[in-house]
Amino acid sequence: MNRFEPNLRLAGPTMLPPSVREAGGRQMSSHRGAEFTAMMDRVLARMRPFFGTTGDVAMISCSGTGGLEAAVANTVSPGEQVLCVSIGLFGDRFAEIASLYGANTARLSIEWGRAVDPDELRAHLQSHPGYRAVFLTHNETSTGVLDSIDVLAAVVREVQPEALIIVDGVSAVGSVPFKMDEWQIDLAVTASQKGWMAAPGLAMVAVSPRAWAEIERTTTPRFYFDLRRYHESQARGMAVWTPAIAVMYQLDAALDLMSAEGAEAIFARHEACAAATRAGLEALGFELFADSHHYSPTVTAVSLPDGLDWETLNRGLAAQGVIVAGGLGQLSGSIFRVGHLGSVTLGEILDTVGALEDLSIQLKRGVRAGVGVAAAQAAALESIGRHPLAQVCPSAGQRGGT
Amino acid sequence: MNRFEPNLRLAGPTMLPPSVREAGGRQMSSHRGAEFTAMMDRVLARMRPFFGTTGDVAMISCSGTGGLEAAVANTVSPGEQVLCVSIGLFGDRFAEIASLYGANTARLSIEWGRAVDPDELRAHLQSHPGYRAVFLTHNETSTGVLDSIDVLAAVVREVQPEALIIVDGVSAVGSVPFKMDEWQIDLAVTASQKGWMAAPGLAMVAVSPRAWAEIERTTTPRFYFDLRRYHESQARGMAVWTPAIAVMYQLDAALDLMSAEGAEAIFARHEACAAATRAGLEALGFELFADSHHYSPTVTAVSLPDGLDWETLNRGLAAQGVIVAGGLGQLSGSIFRVGHLGSVTLGEILDTVGALEDLSIQLKRGVRAGVGVAAAQAAALESIGRHPLAQVCPSAGQRGGT
Repeated sequence: MNRFEPNLRLAGPTMLPPSVREAGGRQMSSHRGAEFTAMMDRVLARMRPFFGTTGDVAMISCSGTGGLEAAVANTVSPGEQVLCVSIGLFGDRFAEIASLYGANTARLSIEWGRAVDPDELRAHLQSHPGYRAVFLTHNETSTGVLDSIDVLAAVVREVQPEALIIVDGVSAVGSVPFKMDEWQIDLAVTASQKGWMAAPGLAMVAVSPRAWAEIERTTTPRFYFDLRRYHESQARGMAVWTPAIAVMYQLDAALDLMSAEGAEAIFARHEACAAATRAGLEALGFELFADSHHYSPTVTAVSLPDGLDWETLNRGLAAQGVIVAGGLGQLSGSIFRVGHLGSVTLGEILDTVGALEDLSIQLKRGVRAGVGVAAAQAAALESIGRHPLAQVCPSAGQRGGT
Repeated sequence: MNRFEPNLRLAGPTMLPPSVREAGGRQMSSHRGAEFTAMMDRVLARMRPFFGTTGDVAMISCSGTGGLEAAVANTVSPGEQVLCVSIGLFGDRFAEIASLYGANTARLSIEWGRAVDPDELRAHLQSHPGYRAVFLTHNETSTGVLDSIDVLAAVVREVQPEALIIVDGVSAVGSVPFKMDEWQIDLAVTASQKGWMAAPGLAMVAVSPRAWAEIERTTTPRFYFDLRRYHESQARGMAVWTPAIAVMYQLDAALDLMSAEGAEAIFARHEACAAATRAGLEALGFELFADSHHYSPTVTAVSLPDGLDWETLNRGLAAQGVIVAGGLGQLSGSIFRVGHLGSVTLGEILDTVGALEDLSIQLKRGVRAGVGVAAAQAAALESIGRHPLAQVCPSAGQRGGT
């Protein structure tokens, strides 16, 4: 943390480590040269393990939503039956895109704040055969819920083995374990400003060998988002269109840090920061929004208590340099969200909980000084205890230290 | 110039000025906060005059090609008649996208290296009534040709007044005069890595009031590229999806420089650098590819002479720190291209011509030392003489000097 910059606790964009910021400030270079090819190959090689795949990962210059659209437009032809399983705003967005592209879109909509019940999914799939694709959300950024995507994918594969399994992993991949090949997921989407510690501007779409055959027979028109164009160009070491070069520089620098830290340590750090956030907030009397069995390791949704509106909270925290996210869609004005993904450290979470504690005392919410941060610290240490690999502090390189 | 970095003479991405690089290295911030809103408004307010419009400009996180797709997908419904007037690879791309989206796509294809003859366009429009839209290229990056877009737009408006006029201005707007409202152009596309001196990652699509009504009735499915979503969000000071924030930072910084320099001076600088490039190359015995009446002020295409292949040229120039672009499509291996747009200075052009001169001498092409750079310098000074506002050297601010 730096007292001259805010503590950005959004669910993306995240804080950029110093080396990533430096990469973003680099001079332009040719995207048709050998250096770019080497950089793109290096980025992809280090990203694939976080997807848990040895297959293709298309890098598309767009936001995460563009990645979701690419996932739909490449797999669904007009009139085909698809199932969109939604647990929040981004699940609904998948369904909206599929409908817009003419798919015969069934929705299995779960109450916001809850995860998908595998039995409910199984029952639905058994009574509605013939889906071409099933769309799932791994981590629902709007509600702070993590679906058990491995279990859900297994259910789809068991009941409708022909269906493509397409996962919104935007705020999950890179931050939590993801095993695309092992779980037999066909498409997975993520974006540069989430767990990857880079600026927004690149979406990544991983594609299974099985999906490629289906993509070939999809009739939906697509050009910029046509995954085949990325596949062909990237195989030749080229970006298909002029890519977001500076974001690629940043991803390359961020993956240096992620490789040094190691996937297990990254995942454990996310869990520890999430546990600290939850414990700190609960000690301050806040109620967490999500089902306690499915808390997200990357974003925590918190109900706004009676008598504390979003504007007051947001202004009060911003005055202390802490920027959190508001509620989206139907939750606008009734929750706030604390992001803890990417470069997040326990120090930033303690700072956040401390600011909420201070604000709570100012607002006479009956909070004793220290109770929030103490609970956060204890929860983090307990979480770390369960994960011997965890480094809740960033690596020396990341912090720019010794 | 800096001897520790190459002289990037591509037709985009261009060299970034120091203040733009610094902006690219800034920490992330919330794209839902007041600061972002102020920045986006500031960027749009200063960009509109370069489009010559008081209307909407959508900022889409994608490459220029994504901007072209947005232009097509929002204006053309399946089965409708459109005319794509192509003078090169990017004109062909417009036609490819329109066909792919199901438009009944007529092509008026001009020999590469030539501009559109207004009389030929008029004759075509007279004998083929009923186009919904006519797609034109202002500056064809693949051939170094600048179409007389004001004249062509007037021809369309005269013969088929109902047709939408849609312009690929990717490598033109910001670098050459463009008067969208006055010329009655309906959609115009540009991209951040061209005249705007920023990294790739943002496309800008300007839309006329007349076009909005047509966009409403277009049935082509679109989500990420739906211009209405940008219109609605931007009117509320919001980006519709998580935007390429770092590129927006850069555009903001670049527009500081562009505003300080002034549009007339920017355009004159481009003309002077283009004149210098052409004169220098011709003095070295190179043949320019484009029709001499329609040379581009932003990119010069040069025929590779007998006995000099692209790889040898590219390697020889790169060894001297000068990076030029190769030929695209049918011109691959037969031309090379020198970009002179955005931050370009006469010094960078002299450096480029000097490197070509040195290489020509090494290759025993019968060139006398100094002849190329002398011709370049003389042409620039003559061009500046015609443009009293020109500052061929960048502003002190841009160069970071006194």
